[in-house]
Amino acid sequence: MDLFGGIEAGGTKFVCVIASGPDDVRAEKRIATTTPKETLDNVIAFFKEYTQSTHEAIQALGVACFGPLDLNPKSPTYGYITTTPKPGWANVDVVGPLKAALGLPVAFDTDVNGAAIGEGAWGAAQGMDDFLYFTIGTGIGGGAVYNGSTIRGLVHPEMGHVLLPHDRQRDPYPGFCPFHKDCFEGLASGPSMQDRWGKPATELPPDHPAWALEAEYIAAAMQIFVSGLSPTRVILGGGVMQQEQLFPLVRRRTQEMLNGYIQSPVILERIDDLIVPPGLGNRAGVLGAVALAQRAVK
Amino acid sequence: MDLFGGIEAGGTKFVCVIASGPDDVRAEKRIATTTPKETLDNVIAFFKEYTQSTHEAIQALGVACFGPLDLNPKSPTYGYITTTPKPGWANVDVVGPLKAALGLPVAFDTDVNGAAIGEGAWGAAQGMDDFLYFTIGTGIGGGAVYNGSTIRGLVHPEMGHVLLPHDRQRDPYPGFCPFHKDCFEGLASGPSMQDRWGKPATELPPDHPAWALEAEYIAAAMQIFVSGLSPTRVILGGGVMQQEQLFPLVRRRTQEMLNGYIQSPVILERIDDLIVPPGLGNRAGVLGAVALAQRAVK
Repeated sequence: MDLFGGIEAGGTKFVCVIASGPDDVRAEKRIATTTPKETLDNVIAFFKEYTQSTHEAIQALGVACFGPLDLNPKSPTYGYITTTPKPGWANVDVVGPLKAALGLPVAFDTDVNGAAIGEGAWGAAQGMDDFLYFTIGTGIGGGAVYNGSTIRGLVHPEMGHVLLPHDRQRDPYPGFCPFHKDCFEGLASGPSMQDRWGKPATELPPDHPAWALEAEYIAAAMQIFVSGLSPTRVILGGGVMQQEQLFPLVRRRTQEMLNGYIQSPVILERIDDLIVPPGLGNRAGVLGAVALAQRAVK
Repeated sequence: MDLFGGIEAGGTKFVCVIASGPDDVRAEKRIATTTPKETLDNVIAFFKEYTQSTHEAIQALGVACFGPLDLNPKSPTYGYITTTPKPGWANVDVVGPLKAALGLPVAFDTDVNGAAIGEGAWGAAQGMDDFLYFTIGTGIGGGAVYNGSTIRGLVHPEMGHVLLPHDRQRDPYPGFCPFHKDCFEGLASGPSMQDRWGKPATELPPDHPAWALEAEYIAAAMQIFVSGLSPTRVILGGGVMQQEQLFPLVRRRTQEMLNGYIQSPVILERIDDLIVPPGLGNRAGVLGAVALAQRAVK
């Protein structure tokens, strides 16, 4: 079995694995996100030590990274984290040092595009060519796979920042996003729930009106992305979606908001098949990084 | 030069051309959309007569068609118009009769995906792999090309039916869409303008407040699609966009609504390059059909 390195590069930790697939993870390490140099040095050391001690070759590395990122292969700053507010991490080359130190092909994509690729390879979107993955938690982000490839475009999608309908009579809360106020992330992220209701979302009981409102915003986003992109499946992951009471509420309201316009049985009769939790749970990111590496070699 | 047949199949007319490209259109015919049989018979006759009289071979046909459509090649009703409200045209096979009568490969896509492909081949998105085309007129629709291919997915995108933020204090008009009321099409199509202001959009003077409101809704849609899909270009065509005063208004409001979040010079400094009119004008649809045919053979 060919082995691949996967790095889920997040703002608090870098999760590194060496694996041939989800059921064959040979080694794993969580590395705290400190300075770029220290963090990347620790990442490099993990992969070097593995190959030196086992004499097993790694074919390629995949990095599913927090952003924003430069994903344009023709750009001089390809492989960089660009304008992040995270101190010390703006304009940091991620791909360059990994490639130089490890001498391997490095695939690089957003954390959510990576998770989408992982879900397509081994999770809830196996065998599908056109689907979306969202994480709804501290922030909100979305990854898209169409015709089998991730969508990147000008920069990369920022699906958590789309504006949503906002009924201020029902919900006078102005929104949490410093850029857009009441975008998807501004209305429906974990921090927006905490700010609106005065306590962490995890402390709100399942029958609290917060959840119906939360489902309303997620469903509005689903209306937008299902109408606008026609996915065959939408995977909803992240901390907020661990509140399982959300799934039936989101599905019903999405169906109501689409209101029969799109005449597909998947929407009209099998909405449970359209909007689903991740098949890989919270492993979508790091296994997605492995899948990115695998695709880079194929 | 290889010749291709292009059919822009619309609800009022089918425009048919035989061409090798935009500057070499050998024949063209507008056929009224009557019954499916009569219309398709007339289309078939046009292409047959051309090849019989000139002895020039046509390599393939492209059809950019009003919908909704079945675009799934594995479906038994692939190539059909499906649930259209247009009398007589629901569940009509378009590709089958053309293929059977003309014996040519037939490429089939939505009218807006076709127009997008045309703009990518010869128009405002030449050389680009990731871009959007919208028509804003009697209806609103969008086509998407990512990684060089059109997005289809479950059915096909219905970008005109995404929900938009709607400030009812500024605009108490409830919206025109029979399915969603105040979606993009319900708030910003030509008929919604006529319904809201009591006269056709073409009779509203350029300084009428209708245009600032129209630009507001188009910009909200741009915020959603630029954030959500990260296109390198967005082409805005259709009858409403012939009001050229809309472009600067839409660009400015899109920039304001994105509010510096996406740190790309194209958005921050060159928004005129991001949001543009069609390069092929109202020929995007039929030339797009020719481009679809060309791609089918390549």
